[in-house]
Amino acid sequence: MNTEIKKLLENVRDGAVSVDEALLQLKASPFEDLGYAKVDLHRAIRQGLPEVIYGASKTPQQIRGIIETMRAAGQERILITRLSPEAAASLADAPSFRYVPEAKAGFVGDLPEADGIGNIVVATGGTSDIPVAEEAALTAECFGNKVVRLYDVGVAGLHRLLSHMDEIMNASVIIAIAGMEGALASVIGGLADCPVIAVPTSVGYGASFGGVTALLAMLNSCAGGVSVVNIDNGFGAGYLASMINHMEAKK
Amino acid sequence: MNTEIKKLLENVRDGAVSVDEALLQLKASPFEDLGYAKVDLHRAIRQGLPEVIYGASKTPQQIRGIIETMRAAGQERILITRLSPEAAASLADAPSFRYVPEAKAGFVGDLPEADGIGNIVVATGGTSDIPVAEEAALTAECFGNKVVRLYDVGVAGLHRLLSHMDEIMNASVIIAIAGMEGALASVIGGLADCPVIAVPTSVGYGASFGGVTALLAMLNSCAGGVSVVNIDNGFGAGYLASMINHMEAKK
Amino acid sequence: MNTEIKKLLENVRDGAVSVDEALLQLKASPFEDLGYAKVDLHRAIRQGLPEVIYGASKTPQQIRGIIETMRAAGQERILITRLSPEAAASLADAPSFRYVPEAKAGFVGDLPEADGIGNIVVATGGTSDIPVAEEAALTAECFGNKVVRLYDVGVAGLHRLLSHMDEIMNASVIIAIAGMEGALASVIGGLADCPVIAVPTSVGYGASFGGVTALLAMLNSCAGGVSVVNIDNGFGAGYLASMINHMEAKK
Amino acid sequence: MNTEIKKLLENVRDGAVSVDEALLQLKASPFEDLGYAKVDLHRAIRQGLPEVIYGASKTPQQIRGIIETMRAAGQERILITRLSPEAAASLADAPSFRYVPEAKAGFVGDLPEADGIGNIVVATGGTSDIPVAEEAALTAECFGNKVVRLYDVGVAGLHRLLSHMDEIMNASVIIAIAGMEGALASVIGGLADCPVIAVPTSVGYGASFGGVTALLAMLNSCAGGVSVVNIDNGFGAGYLASMINHMEAKK
Amino acid sequence: MNTEIKKLLENVRDGAVSVDEALLQLKASPFEDLGYAKVDLHRAIRQGLPEVIYGASKTPQQIRGIIETMRAAGQERILITRLSPEAAASLADAPSFRYVPEAKAGFVGDLPEADGIGNIVVATGGTSDIPVAEEAALTAECFGNKVVRLYDVGVAGLHRLLSHMDEIMNASVIIAIAGMEGALASVIGGLADCPVIAVPTSVGYGASFGGVTALLAMLNSCAGGVSVVNIDNGFGAGYLASMINHMEAKK
Amino acid sequence: MNTEIKKLLENVRDGAVSVDEALLQLKASPFEDLGYAKVDLHRAIRQGLPEVIYGASKTPQQIRGIIETMRAAGQERILITRLSPEAAASLADAPSFRYVPEAKAGFVGDLPEADGIGNIVVATGGTSDIPVAEEAALTAECFGNKVVRLYDVGVAGLHRLLSHMDEIMNASVIIAIAGMEGALASVIGGLADCPVIAVPTSVGYGASFGGVTALLAMLNSCAGGVSVVNIDNGFGAGYLASMINHMEAKK
Amino acid sequence: MNTEIKKLLENVRDGAVSVDEALLQLKASPFEDLGYAKVDLHRAIRQGLPEVIYGASKTPQQIRGIIETMRAAGQERILITRLSPEAAASLADAPSFRYVPEAKAGFVGDLPEADGIGNIVVATGGTSDIPVAEEAALTAECFGNKVVRLYDVGVAGLHRLLSHMDEIMNASVIIAIAGMEGALASVIGGLADCPVIAVPTSVGYGASFGGVTALLAMLNSCAGGVSVVNIDNGFGAGYLASMINHMEAKK
Amino acid sequence: MNTEIKKLLENVRDGAVSVDEALLQLKASPFEDLGYAKVDLHRAIRQGLPEVIYGASKTPQQIRGIIETMRAAGQERILITRLSPEAAASLADAPSFRYVPEAKAGFVGDLPEADGIGNIVVATGGTSDIPVAEEAALTAECFGNKVVRLYDVGVAGLHRLLSHMDEIMNASVIIAIAGMEGALASVIGGLADCPVIAVPTSVGYGASFGGVTALLAMLNSCAGGVSVVNIDNGFGAGYLASMINHMEAKK
Repeated sequence: MNTEIKKLLENVRDGAVSVDEALLQLKASPFEDLGYAKVDLHRAIRQGLPEVIYGASKTPQQIRGIIETMRAAGQERILITRLSPEAAASLADAPSFRYVPEAKAGFVGDLPEADGIGNIVVATGGTSDIPVAEEAALTAECFGNKVVRLYDVGVAGLHRLLSHMDEIMNASVIIAIAGMEGALASVIGGLADCPVIAVPTSVGYGASFGGVTALLAMLNSCAGGVSVVNIDNGFGAGYLASMINHMEAKK
Repeated sequence: MNTEIKKLLENVRDGAVSVDEALLQLKASPFEDLGYAKVDLHRAIRQGLPEVIYGASKTPQQIRGIIETMRAAGQERILITRLSPEAAASLADAPSFRYVPEAKAGFVGDLPEADGIGNIVVATGGTSDIPVAEEAALTAECFGNKVVRLYDVGVAGLHRLLSHMDEIMNASVIIAIAGMEGALASVIGGLADCPVIAVPTSVGYGASFGGVTALLAMLNSCAGGVSVVNIDNGFGAGYLASMINHMEAKK
Repeated sequence: MNTEIKKLLENVRDGAVSVDEALLQLKASPFEDLGYAKVDLHRAIRQGLPEVIYGASKTPQQIRGIIETMRAAGQERILITRLSPEAAASLADAPSFRYVPEAKAGFVGDLPEADGIGNIVVATGGTSDIPVAEEAALTAECFGNKVVRLYDVGVAGLHRLLSHMDEIMNASVIIAIAGMEGALASVIGGLADCPVIAVPTSVGYGASFGGVTALLAMLNSCAGGVSVVNIDNGFGAGYLASMINHMEAKK
Repeated sequence: MNTEIKKLLENVRDGAVSVDEALLQLKASPFEDLGYAKVDLHRAIRQGLPEVIYGASKTPQQIRGIIETMRAAGQERILITRLSPEAAASLADAPSFRYVPEAKAGFVGDLPEADGIGNIVVATGGTSDIPVAEEAALTAECFGNKVVRLYDVGVAGLHRLLSHMDEIMNASVIIAIAGMEGALASVIGGLADCPVIAVPTSVGYGASFGGVTALLAMLNSCAGGVSVVNIDNGFGAGYLASMINHMEAKK
Repeated sequence: MNTEIKKLLENVRDGAVSVDEALLQLKASPFEDLGYAKVDLHRAIRQGLPEVIYGASKTPQQIRGIIETMRAAGQERILITRLSPEAAASLADAPSFRYVPEAKAGFVGDLPEADGIGNIVVATGGTSDIPVAEEAALTAECFGNKVVRLYDVGVAGLHRLLSHMDEIMNASVIIAIAGMEGALASVIGGLADCPVIAVPTSVGYGASFGGVTALLAMLNSCAGGVSVVNIDNGFGAGYLASMINHMEAKK
Repeated sequence: MNTEIKKLLENVRDGAVSVDEALLQLKASPFEDLGYAKVDLHRAIRQGLPEVIYGASKTPQQIRGIIETMRAAGQERILITRLSPEAAASLADAPSFRYVPEAKAGFVGDLPEADGIGNIVVATGGTSDIPVAEEAALTAECFGNKVVRLYDVGVAGLHRLLSHMDEIMNASVIIAIAGMEGALASVIGGLADCPVIAVPTSVGYGASFGGVTALLAMLNSCAGGVSVVNIDNGFGAGYLASMINHMEAKK
Repeated sequence: MNTEIKKLLENVRDGAVSVDEALLQLKASPFEDLGYAKVDLHRAIRQGLPEVIYGASKTPQQIRGIIETMRAAGQERILITRLSPEAAASLADAPSFRYVPEAKAGFVGDLPEADGIGNIVVATGGTSDIPVAEEAALTAECFGNKVVRLYDVGVAGLHRLLSHMDEIMNASVIIAIAGMEGALASVIGGLADCPVIAVPTSVGYGASFGGVTALLAMLNSCAGGVSVVNIDNGFGAGYLASMINHMEAKK
Repeated sequence: MNTEIKKLLENVRDGAVSVDEALLQLKASPFEDLGYAKVDLHRAIRQGLPEVIYGASKTPQQIRGIIETMRAAGQERILITRLSPEAAASLADAPSFRYVPEAKAGFVGDLPEADGIGNIVVATGGTSDIPVAEEAALTAECFGNKVVRLYDVGVAGLHRLLSHMDEIMNASVIIAIAGMEGALASVIGGLADCPVIAVPTSVGYGASFGGVTALLAMLNSCAGGVSVVNIDNGFGAGYLASMINHMEAKK
């Protein structure tokens, strides 16, 4: 770590670089050199992690350009979230590009081996929550996790959820995704013995307020171990779940 | 029905009452006479129902006065809701008055026999919801219902709720009372096969917003047969539950 | 009830099933076997109830598939809510399918005989509330209720409502549907002597906030016996009304 | 009107005032002189109107000081709103001061003769709304209006309101005051044939949100002729009602 | 008044109508007969008032039908609000129909003579508020008022407003229409000496929240004599302004 | 200043103008004459400032008309904000008109020399905030400022922002533009030593509520020297920044 | 695991228990026996975990009672959150009870050895957030974690935070606690390479709305790996952080 | 600038400091050394600026301690905001301490000479806004500005504001402080030709929502040059106003 600065200092010591030049270099790029960017530090430990492109506000041309730049820089895997089918169509001929319509996401490269601590369970209250769930699941898979999908296990039919107690009890992390009243996170939080990431969805009508009701309910969960991400933020949940599922000592 | 108007008309026909006098009578009290006030009509069917005094905005003196007037008018049973212990203390010597501190309510007269269709289950998510639950339960009892109390059966410990499946499956009406994320109503609504009246409570902190989160969650319940009353409105839930538990054909 | 578990235990007793195998079976499907799903329990009592499909988030192909599966399983009556005319058109040739455009709902099978305690009155404040009302009315009719429609009886012209006092006084349950200021529920709640289910609608403009004003007003009704369902939730109101109109002792 | 400017111009013409001095005077007090302040213009038409002091944010000493200054300036009548009993007690010996506890207001001078077009009806939904109503009523009386009080005529007991149809039909202006669901304004607006000023009150609990629910409901009234003032603003309603009740041609 | 009931009673007295028949008549139409509907009472005093059709939720066919029925019933003037140009086009050949595109309203018949107490000033903050203003102005004109339009006099350029002090000081009623921060109502309320009806508009962006900011600001106006109607409710303001501008003693 | 009034008074003194005529002139245009409109006063000091047209609610024809009138009146520079590409296309042939698509704005005339105290830095959190930033930047340039653009320096990658410390430390005013959680304004406010104008943008999803979250976060910034304008209000920020960057003594 | 059911089945097999009796036992307590309560399952793996009592809604007597029962049942460590100094004082003589005033919490027993993967960093924006932070820190310590406290490192003085880069880069989990604009979570989320649990606090005034602004900002963090718990919920954050810091493979 | 790093590099060059030691020093305190803290850079230009203590959440003992430390470090002037009279009383004997009760603030040292570009006008809508205004005014004075106070010039009495046109036109910066509907900022923004800092106050009742209405109105001001700070944030406004009033070129 910090070998570049060390080299610079050695050059100063040896007279190969003048003091003023060294000062300029230090000022010009203090952060890369000093190692504040997390990209440079810990990431090196686990090679092959994908870069992520948020596709929603970009044109297919922009996305293609970013992909090519990344590939040229040696990036093997690239995940593109919030990618419309239309945008995906115009990327179809990009090398090793694959579109996952149920997740509204694209992927460049092949999925890595799952190397996390255990399984990540992705559960949804209803079938309408599935697109958010697939975004979470695909994200987790791209970052090297085994994913178990439990869809349509909402609390209005509790037996559907309870018949999956084994998956729930054996999960390393659970992503609980629900719209409407968002009770799924609380019930799973009460049953499970692992971190639960709650994702409110904008599914519902009337007083569901585009996901706000589910969001508030999840924040108020009286079950321990539950935390919440933004409405419809499947990617954020999948990314955090992967982080937790890869916990290891930093020394 | 409408016998008084009929009598008036007969008197007009017979000349016992002049047209002008009849007109005056009709104008002066059109509603009692025409039977629009529900007090006069159906109430007669089930004698002994209590009158209810909302104690929150009244002085002990006012409450005592109303009680005495009602008693003088032959009212056997009177329920006083939202009655502080201090106000209750100064009513302690009123005849046949009893204070129920856990419901913050007072009662004049003796509880009636339970004569409803079945049991009313009053369930709460936590122990802090009990005052609202006791207001609901006492109200239901005052109106002639058998009440089964299931307290502290919140969804964060689902087994507590599930171990009471018998009571839930055999209830005629269930009052589900919860603060925080309000998931209890959805879970009970999904398990039970009877009307569920959801009561959000102001229990909680932070983003529970004094009961608003529970209220919204309950309104969005995807379970069938669930409806909602105002935050902390134990009386309203108990009253409605009694109405439902006494359903019978009107003609 | 629970005959399968009983049989399993008998097999254990008789040595036909080993203890470990029985343990596995108990764990694998504890809930269906123990009968927690309400479908299996009380529903058997009243045969012929319709299954309900929420059509809003499904393609015509999906709906057709579900219908066919249900019919194959012996389901006589199926109600499809939130069904657009376009989706209905592509179902037109399904056997015994009928579209009810004013309720934006479809129906498979014939309507059952009304067998409830009494009439369900469906009242609206204005003509714009009628689609929600028709969803409620059709739902109630599908579940075996006689429905009386009182449309456009909003409180701004009180005489229209008051001229229907007979229907109101004779109702078993009233569904009060209104947007704007939602006062209809309070006024009916004050007049009627039966449970009133209030349905706020998203009708209105400006500070009606898509039904929130009506929702809040209905929750604050000072009339007894009023409870509230979600904005525009005609189905929920009709289903609950039917439940109340079919109250009977469980044991 | 504008006689002072005219006199100034005449003085300029006559050489009694120099141009620079006139310019200074015009600049120094353009508004009083040009008659923009409403105090100087139309007020002169109706002598004896009270000045109003908003007592809430002032000490008794400050209030006493203002009263004395006003009296010294010839003001006969002074209304002090939002005056606590404690503050009133320390004003008790002020000459011709009277405290009206039910309106939480004080008054200096005697009430004027009522000289408006007709009666102002002040109606409330419940007894808890009476303090706001008394503030409105006293304000109207102070400004020369005959006030008819109809208290506790909320829509949950419609017959109470309907038995006062005569007062309602004969009112010039009606002030409809209610908390909770605020339906009183709509119902009165539908019955009456005159301007209705709706005043939401902070009475209620739970989802009444300190008057916001009533406020929203009143703004959405579908009855014609209804407008709304701020929550608990009895003074504003009384003042506006008096303005309307004293309408007359300006030319 | 009430002559029909009187006649009925006389017929009962004279034996021309039986008691049962009279009872039926009284029950069947208690409200028209007893005179509760305002239509029958005071409206007769000012003939020629228009009927109003809310066009937003009706088809051109429905509107045409209602117009024809009203005309057949002798109604001379009909105002149709919220009428789109497309709907208006298909009404173009209706007899004596005229479309007012700037008010998004149609009119049948000719405008009445202005017979109110004085002028109604309609003022707007910006040019985007003009459609709401024209709805208010046309409504007022249809109900017999002289209207003075002051458009684009918002407080960001105060001199524009102040240069119209004469119109403001001479108004009988002022309708102040503004979006954004809604300050116009307060400034006019502070300048004028007559009732001010504030109309928030949905004009604005960002934190204007579709008119909510203007609505709240107007409700909090510290100027006396200001009341508020719903967002964009030009019709309601014009109707109320006309009511106030036609104030007269009822007895 | 006020020379016109002085001249008028001199004319009155000299008998060239009668008193009544002078009174009329004073009343008719008190504000222009007295110099209350800011246009006439200080603007003269800095010639060449552009007039601004808010293009959002105007047709291309209207815009062209306003431009022509302004040009005829000698206005050299005109900025048209919120101008769609379609509207711009139909203005393409207007003399010296230029469209700036990234700012959704048009400009007539040439940009002035930058003559402010120092640089205005325009910083954005992400690339989606750029349209608002360009509106701010173009506005500042049109009003004579040198603008430094720092785009996509959001706090999730702090090193990007910190590598621009020189620009930040040397700015005269900084416009910090961000959606989502709006933290950029706080971080810049903590780093910089100059006024920071925060502009929340409607970029985001879920609980960003169209910019409300960023707005609230910015208002709560604990860094000194930060103030906030409306959501997406790039023009307002650029205009205020220019005002601050041109501060000078008024005497 | 499930030894009781196994024993029951063995008894059935051996004829020691009849089938009906076994069925009854299975029905009566399906959940404890089947092991759905997480207490019984995984908890056994890590002995010595504390039980937690939420002290806010309990009397000192109740708390003492619960403590004694738990101790009698062999529970070594008990954490009591939200414990006021007054309540703590009356528990002072309970055996091995210690009060931690800065966390408003009490503790029975001794703190366990830290046995997690790494350090949990608890960071706050200001000094007013410290009580919430101490609740989080104490909770984490009670559950066997090493805690590093970084207080008063808010983004308004970024150098304070950046001077602790080592602690941040070496953390296993970070709890970011802030009121006001809540930007701390985003900045830390952008710097750190581990899960970040954001805790909004109710610290602030005006538009901080008791923590809602910080809550919303944190939910919208564009940094990866950030999730959010309820306002002021230090316990929840500490508990979840401990869970993550003890991640290990389940089978 | 950066002389310490330069010296360090020179020492490395000269062999006085080893490379490893230099690396450590660079890592240990990168921010102070590199000059990122604004305290060290520009502040030196204007000596004598006060340090500020936010008194609200500190005990008198803590405040006294901070003051003594600051004084010992050579700080001449210290401003303590949000200081209650009780806390101030216990600081009364601190050397050169003075309490300013109307600003709820204390001050150590003497006020500096005013050396800004021009005057800062502090204007309020009502008398209840004065505490916030005095906090702003004292802050501005402490930072070396001449302050002109215009209190109680709210828009409900526009002539009061307009009679101060001279002060408004000659201001360098204006702080517009108002509660209720917050219209003052818009009106001043429309009149003045300088930056206007709007401060909403929590003064008001009902739908003023503790300052939110004023806040929203101010954010929507259509006048140019207006920006907004948090509710009741007098200090923030005074500090920013001083910054603007001391604008000067940085290079």
